Amino acid sequence: MARRPGRRPGPTETRGAILSAAREMFAEHGYDRATIRGIARRAEVDPALVHHFFGNKEQVFVAAMELPFQPADVLPELLSGPQEELPERLVRFFFSVWEDPDRRAPFIGLLRSALTASGETTMMGEFVTSALFERVAEHVGVPERDATLLMGQLVGVAMLRYVVRIEPLASAEVEDVIQGVLPAVRSYIVRSPQPEA
Amino acid sequence: MARRPGRRPGPTETRGAILSAAREMFAEHGYDRATIRGIARRAEVDPALVHHFFGNKEQVFVAAMELPFQPADVLPELLSGPQEELPERLVRFFFSVWEDPDRRAPFIGLLRSALTASGETTMMGEFVTSALFERVAEHVGVPERDATLLMGQLVGVAMLRYVVRIEPLASAEVEDVIQGVLPAVRSYIVRSPQPEA
Repeated sequence: MARRPGRRPGPTETRGAILSAAREMFAEHGYDRATIRGIARRAEVDPALVHHFFGNKEQVFVAAMELPFQPADVLPELLSGPQEELPERLVRFFFSVWEDPDRRAPFIGLLRSALTASGETTMMGEFVTSALFERVAEHVGVPERDATLLMGQLVGVAMLRYVVRIEPLASAEVEDVIQGVLPAVRSYIVRSPQPEA
Repeated sequence: MARRPGRRPGPTETRGAILSAAREMFAEHGYDRATIRGIARRAEVDPALVHHFFGNKEQVFVAAMELPFQPADVLPELLSGPQEELPERLVRFFFSVWEDPDRRAPFIGLLRSALTASGETTMMGEFVTSALFERVAEHVGVPERDATLLMGQLVGVAMLRYVVRIEPLASAEVEDVIQGVLPAVRSYIVRSPQPEA
């Protein structure tokens, strides 16, 4: 019942304390204004330990939200290569994550909290901008506005298929969904040259 | 303080009782299986009174969820006319509703409950299918799957712009958003003829 006297918190407890502190700080301050230093202070550990366990702020966020991958690991490969093939690579990757109930669960959690708690909304919006859109815009040369509209297409379909489960979308083969959504996704990435502006 | 003796519930109270009963029945049984008769029974009124106050089941749902318009009133006009102009009419109507905080509030409420309560998810999915997609498919000749993907595009953009407030989407002029999303919406409605299948 009683703790062994003099026992220090082990690495598992310390990791857990850091992740709890991170979730609180991100929800309270948003992604942009939360800092490793602030998270460390709340967890009562040294900032170096946060870096040691998790890495940079983006990696702390991914661990705290239990996201199934690090955007920084996945995006560069996904975004490189011929631009004509990018829509299909992007859509296939997106649905490979969402088709797996374990991997989509944390994203459903993020959507849910974005709709219910305004602090978490800010956190999610800022994270997505910093981890996804700025990189997409940089690698691909698509305007950030179009990157967010494209994201809207994919997130909206994911909501209707996996959460609201609207038919016939919910029961459709994933390959049909991919083929169905591709022309719209292409419309954002492979645009005919615009008159200068 | 005390009610006047023998006072019967007035029309306002009866309407309120019907709407409460409707919200419960839709959440418990879904849209398809809820009936005017069941709603009347729960509200302890005659089914004819439900019809008298609100009309058919779809109209009861719209009143209970405080939606800002009746799909049956809006869709026929929206969907008729030249098919090339349909994407723009649809997108302009959608954003005219969402730009108005009062009119978008009930839809945000529906999205929120769809993400949190599974009964309400079913209710919303079934209502949207019956009130929107079956009519779109009928009027326009777009396959229902494509109608749901198109809906995913619009709902997703609405979530990111009005709820999560991702930049630069949240601060963009609505006209820019409309022009940005139109090519994707067109890709669902104005498709080049498919090989027979």
